[in-house]
Amino acid sequence: MKALLVTMGDAAGIGPEIIVRAFNAGQLANAVVVGDVDVLRRAGSPITARIDSPADLAAVPPGALPVLVPAGLPEGLAQLPLGQVDGRNGAAAARCIEAAVALVLAGEAAALVTAPIHKEALAAAGVGYPGHTEMLQALAARAGEAPPPVRMMLANDELRVVLVTIHLSLRKAIEGVTFDAVLQTLRIAHRAAAAWGQRRPRIAVAGLNPHAGEGGLFGDEELQIIGPAVAAARAERLDVAGPFAPDTVFMRARRGEFDLVVAMTHDHGLIPVKYLGVEQGVNVTLGLPFVRTSPDHGTAFDIAGQGLADASSLVAAVRMAWRLVGAA
Amino acid sequence: MKALLVTMGDAAGIGPEIIVRAFNAGQLANAVVVGDVDVLRRAGSPITARIDSPADLAAVPPGALPVLVPAGLPEGLAQLPLGQVDGRNGAAAARCIEAAVALVLAGEAAALVTAPIHKEALAAAGVGYPGHTEMLQALAARAGEAPPPVRMMLANDELRVVLVTIHLSLRKAIEGVTFDAVLQTLRIAHRAAAAWGQRRPRIAVAGLNPHAGEGGLFGDEELQIIGPAVAAARAERLDVAGPFAPDTVFMRARRGEFDLVVAMTHDHGLIPVKYLGVEQGVNVTLGLPFVRTSPDHGTAFDIAGQGLADASSLVAAVRMAWRLVGAA
Repeated sequence: MKALLVTMGDAAGIGPEIIVRAFNAGQLANAVVVGDVDVLRRAGSPITARIDSPADLAAVPPGALPVLVPAGLPEGLAQLPLGQVDGRNGAAAARCIEAAVALVLAGEAAALVTAPIHKEALAAAGVGYPGHTEMLQALAARAGEAPPPVRMMLANDELRVVLVTIHLSLRKAIEGVTFDAVLQTLRIAHRAAAAWGQRRPRIAVAGLNPHAGEGGLFGDEELQIIGPAVAAARAERLDVAGPFAPDTVFMRARRGEFDLVVAMTHDHGLIPVKYLGVEQGVNVTLGLPFVRTSPDHGTAFDIAGQGLADASSLVAAVRMAWRLVGAA
Repeated sequence: MKALLVTMGDAAGIGPEIIVRAFNAGQLANAVVVGDVDVLRRAGSPITARIDSPADLAAVPPGALPVLVPAGLPEGLAQLPLGQVDGRNGAAAARCIEAAVALVLAGEAAALVTAPIHKEALAAAGVGYPGHTEMLQALAARAGEAPPPVRMMLANDELRVVLVTIHLSLRKAIEGVTFDAVLQTLRIAHRAAAAWGQRRPRIAVAGLNPHAGEGGLFGDEELQIIGPAVAAARAERLDVAGPFAPDTVFMRARRGEFDLVVAMTHDHGLIPVKYLGVEQGVNVTLGLPFVRTSPDHGTAFDIAGQGLADASSLVAAVRMAWRLVGAA
């Protein structure tokens, strides 16, 4: 079985310590960390085994954390202060992601789990991407082609939600709910589910307006945009239903009526996923040519290095990645 | 102890049968139904005790459903078909509400729980209100004064949410998020909690935009409107905090950090309340001069009279009403 890759994220954040904590708890079986050995040692890993390829994992003795160090990593990262923005940490985080994506695309690893990176540290390093998603899209683009369209899925054990719009004001999000955006989200969600072994996922679409517009009384996006996109997806033989009233569709999905819910806005989708506890939430990028998950939290500079960070979401991300590649 | 009044709602809907079911399950102690005796008999109540005043409740033998029949109720309601809109049922529902409000305002009853009514049946009866809320506001208005401003609270055992906007398109809801609307919601929520015995409720305010606007990056309503309204409420010594990111504030309230959450839109607030199951959700009207709760569902004409209706939400509404008057 191919290994799973875990990028260390920003070395000044909680990424390295939650990786070490998850490893020490026996939760990183068959995983290779892509990162800096000294940073991981500082984060509490006494024994590290540096390897050059994921295939070497079998030779790593039990109890040693397998680390793949990308070429071109800046020196002296473990001497930089924790909890502070530094361009060298941004550059290192980017190098780890580039190296890991190259390995996954080359078929040398099963999937990618990314620990949190810091937007400002990336910028300080001159990395031209605001975050993981855009960087992964660019790295996954075939030569001469546009980056693949992607969507964010947030998932926990009982609910999977795919978002049509994400980091926009609510006003702009409403403008972002177009026929094309909704239909593309449905296609991406359907294909992703197919890729992880679910042939014909039952997709529910949440409306934008209260009561899904109540027949046009509370807004017409359901009639003019979302309904037609659902119809177009059904014409492509996708198992899509809705648009449903946003306030009850997530409860229905949780009870098993649907496999995933497509939500129009960031908070319609994320409120129910996070309601029972953020620790369990996992971020999955759909539309990439490989499985990529991440914990649903940031670098937490305020608590980095204090032994307070909770590894649950990283562990959930690892578990979800294995599930999505069909190995768990 | 004063009795609690339960209006029967639209006789063609599930109201009468969930009332009878709740009574038979021993869940309507110290309550008087305001309605039609024959309709309640049809709904499964073998023994009814007609009384003229809530004060007569003590004389009702155990096992008999106490019914207060308002003057002016249309004849022959129990002969009308179930599951169909009829102006006579609309008129009867309105009469029951009027009579019940008069009794509560006169201090003859402790609180009001309303079974579902039907908008079209009300209209067919020439009742000039689209629903309970507007009708209760009008009935509660002092002579010569404007109706009191009210807000909808949705609550279950673990979460209480008060809404700034309700039945509007999302576009119009954004326009409805004004300084005055937010501040008034905070005052109403605070006063209502004080009235039910919680002196200084810890109120959290959810933002409108993702990440509560992320410092203005994803919308400026938090900076321009919501934040200033929170500051104004704090200047009035209300215990209000926020605006917080909508996707995590409900989870935080559920864990006990806050007593209630003020949400800007219908679905931000209702998604988390309903996520664990609509049966437990209770609708509470804040701002009225008395306690009023209702189950969080409609008349369900499609299943009326079939013995399928679930009385859980009505029972939860009754329990919530007792809790809010400080008797449970």
